[in-house]
Amino acid sequence: MADRSEAAAALKWLDAHEQESIARWIDWLKIPSISTDQAYAPQCRQAAEWAAAQLRAAGVRAELRETGDIDPATKRGSGHPIVMGFAHESDTRADAPHVLFYGHYDVQPVDPVSLWESGPFEPVVREARPGEGGGKRVVARGACDDKGQVMMFLEALRAWKEACGDATSGVRFTILLEGEEESGSANLAKFLKDNQRELQGAKVCLISDTGMLARGHPAITYGVRGLVYTEVVLHGANQDLHSGLWGGRAPNPNNLLARILAQVWDAQGSVTIPGFYDKVRPISPDERAAWSKLAFDASEALGRIGLGSEADVESGERGFTALEREWARPTCDINGITGGYTGTGAKTVIPAKASAKVSFRLVADQEPDAVREAFFAWLRERTPAGCRWELIDHSGGHPATVRTDSGYLQGAMRAIKQACGVDTALIKSGGSIPVAGMLKQMLGLDTIFMGFGLDDDRVHSPNEKFEIECFRWGARSHVLFIDELSRMIAR
Amino acid sequence: MADRSEAAAALKWLDAHEQESIARWIDWLKIPSISTDQAYAPQCRQAAEWAAAQLRAAGVRAELRETGDIDPATKRGSGHPIVMGFAHESDTRADAPHVLFYGHYDVQPVDPVSLWESGPFEPVVREARPGEGGGKRVVARGACDDKGQVMMFLEALRAWKEACGDATSGVRFTILLEGEEESGSANLAKFLKDNQRELQGAKVCLISDTGMLARGHPAITYGVRGLVYTEVVLHGANQDLHSGLWGGRAPNPNNLLARILAQVWDAQGSVTIPGFYDKVRPISPDERAAWSKLAFDASEALGRIGLGSEADVESGERGFTALEREWARPTCDINGITGGYTGTGAKTVIPAKASAKVSFRLVADQEPDAVREAFFAWLRERTPAGCRWELIDHSGGHPATVRTDSGYLQGAMRAIKQACGVDTALIKSGGSIPVAGMLKQMLGLDTIFMGFGLDDDRVHSPNEKFEIECFRWGARSHVLFIDELSRMIAR
Repeated sequence: MADRSEAAAALKWLDAHEQESIARWIDWLKIPSISTDQAYAPQCRQAAEWAAAQLRAAGVRAELRETGDIDPATKRGSGHPIVMGFAHESDTRADAPHVLFYGHYDVQPVDPVSLWESGPFEPVVREARPGEGGGKRVVARGACDDKGQVMMFLEALRAWKEACGDATSGVRFTILLEGEEESGSANLAKFLKDNQRELQGAKVCLISDTGMLARGHPAITYGVRGLVYTEVVLHGANQDLHSGLWGGRAPNPNNLLARILAQVWDAQGSVTIPGFYDKVRPISPDERAAWSKLAFDASEALGRIGLGSEADVESGERGFTALEREWARPTCDINGITGGYTGTGAKTVIPAKASAKVSFRLVADQEPDAVREAFFAWLRERTPAGCRWELIDHSGGHPATVRTDSGYLQGAMRAIKQACGVDTALIKSGGSIPVAGMLKQMLGLDTIFMGFGLDDDRVHSPNEKFEIECFRWGARSHVLFIDELSRMIAR
Repeated sequence: MADRSEAAAALKWLDAHEQESIARWIDWLKIPSISTDQAYAPQCRQAAEWAAAQLRAAGVRAELRETGDIDPATKRGSGHPIVMGFAHESDTRADAPHVLFYGHYDVQPVDPVSLWESGPFEPVVREARPGEGGGKRVVARGACDDKGQVMMFLEALRAWKEACGDATSGVRFTILLEGEEESGSANLAKFLKDNQRELQGAKVCLISDTGMLARGHPAITYGVRGLVYTEVVLHGANQDLHSGLWGGRAPNPNNLLARILAQVWDAQGSVTIPGFYDKVRPISPDERAAWSKLAFDASEALGRIGLGSEADVESGERGFTALEREWARPTCDINGITGGYTGTGAKTVIPAKASAKVSFRLVADQEPDAVREAFFAWLRERTPAGCRWELIDHSGGHPATVRTDSGYLQGAMRAIKQACGVDTALIKSGGSIPVAGMLKQMLGLDTIFMGFGLDDDRVHSPNEKFEIECFRWGARSHVLFIDELSRMIAR
């Protein structure tokens, strides 16, 4: 068990070495670990090796594990490697804390690259501009999601190691850093299954990939949405056609795809696919009351993305507040759509096909497989004459809602409160962290989502940023959460 | 006046030199004169110079004229140059024929380039494959539209010149080859106005940019549709958003654009924009009866583009046959649509904007400006909360329907019948040739559309082709039409 002076020393170390922490964070951000594009596979591996080296520098045993199909010649997997770290792995006491830390080192693609003010992989540290809110920030792809948030944890380990000689203050940690979170975690379920023995004893999972309630309002997230991500391609003629000669006498997949997808929502913004809402857990009166008291201003949030408050009402399902829609209601979004001529100027073409990336955010207790199959069946029922569908599953994950009364979660709340000097809110997130659903299903693990992002961090967008104060609060909170865990050993 | 032996000599020359004609045609096709992309401006100029040289080789005075804004330093225009040719230009007799020949040397873009079996600008001469129908063909971008069709005329001039010493057999021709037909003819109206004096005396316009009724069934086209081509961009937030954090509480331009454009058509395939059909000329019982007797098989046409006959019914406006829909009914098509992530794999984004290229084919007596403004007003009425439109006009043109009882048209029909040995049908086309509307409005000229394309020529699509027999029939028909015109001098 650590005494309070040790945690204080670790915090002091963090404070004194912040510039070096930021420099390391920036080093990692320079590696373009875009997982969805195989052209970046070497950079993904490089980012994994970088993270393993950081763990080792904190005295944590670390190694890269291959995923996917292994090439016998190179011994490398077809997937991106997973970084595994082990601290106090010989501690198998049933009454001792054992935390599985999950994060990911891969990042989203950067397009449209023309909208970036600086290179996505040339991190810039700058002050906030007038009207931006917040303070100094790092701008780069992955600044927040998830390298910045994982970095808070890595620096907390380093602080403990440097200040007190033990990165986890005696607590058993198994650390798993994935490289395919942004591309659908295709190899994760198999990896967890194959390595179940090593993970089996964990009592709780800790993930830093979520946001605060608002700037200055840290939070623990007790639920995330699930995801179904599909690509639907409507094929018409076997060739592109001239819209003059064929307009009005051959199917136009662009027209038809728009007409079909438009039917996914009714006039109230609800999804029309039969059975879609059947398993949705209603919002309890207690939750509704608690959420309405949170310091969340939907209009102010819209203002930060250039929208007036009038944008709120029609953007989602009628009859729910913005928070309720994000946290407790499923949605359907066209994430991408393309067909025909999209270059400069005019081309009078009827394309042979049109396609859309259509995703659904799910809430408890919706089942991803059932939603996807219902959507595909719904599309097939609407197949236009002469056309055919190509329906692709880009994977997804279960929603995860976790208990708020566990000792781990209460310890995390105390750690954040002490680290940041303000109360911690209990919130949910509209994002999806499929690993949480997997860990619950495979290992029975609840997850503590302890993240410090802000909803104007532009994750997945050009000019992604993470603010230095968020990073500082996160690193301090992780230092103190390790302290809380360490105190459980003694109890 | 030519006697019949001269025309026969010209036809004989054509026959004897066909391989050289094809070689010249291929030379021209190798020049990638894509007008919509400014990167190809030098190649457009090169294709113009190539055509001027052909005219000169036939003894026709020819020159390039600049269009658009003229750069004082280079003396070059911001638009692509227009080739002008003049034969017997000193003949200003009011009773003599004076024909304005219009064609274009620019071509459509080539994307998706991956679908081309050979390079779009590496012309291939090959036999038909089993199932393709027809005979030997040239495959390349522009093989038909419009280099191949213009080439028939250029070779007819050359045949007259070589066989009889005069490219037009005494007939006054003004020849205009445009370089911006495929990109909206932005500079043509001003050019015609500025050069009205030179064109004023023309009695009729001749254009070879249309199709036959079917393989083996040549035709004169007496009507083409008009065009309105727009680009509509729906802007939402000022940045791309994470679909987890914002799905359901910020507008998704992809969803909204699909939902709005889907309303352009009703369940019967009719366009719902108020007033859209107000000026549409009804199909007369005579036309309907004549068209129903034509050797046109809608199912067979669909079969050639890989579709069953069931694709016909739902592709356009109910209550009309396929020919009626193409020739006499207006349409709306989404020629291109794009928004959000369209790369490989998954990206959970709500894009800041989504856009579509939306065009309308118009029939007499619809007005392009009125249709475009009605569409834009219709969109503005549907502006989603928090969003704004960017509405772009990519130009267009009036529909053109011409008289079928003129001496010129009757002469052209005789020429085709003698050249091809079969009767000539009187048809319309769903395509748009905006210059015809312009010439009618500015100079009062009717146009004879004497084209030899087939509707499986894949104009505007990968693997565009033009068949040697079509080319041969076209060149012979133009030789004999010059003969018919020449005979008018004597009358």
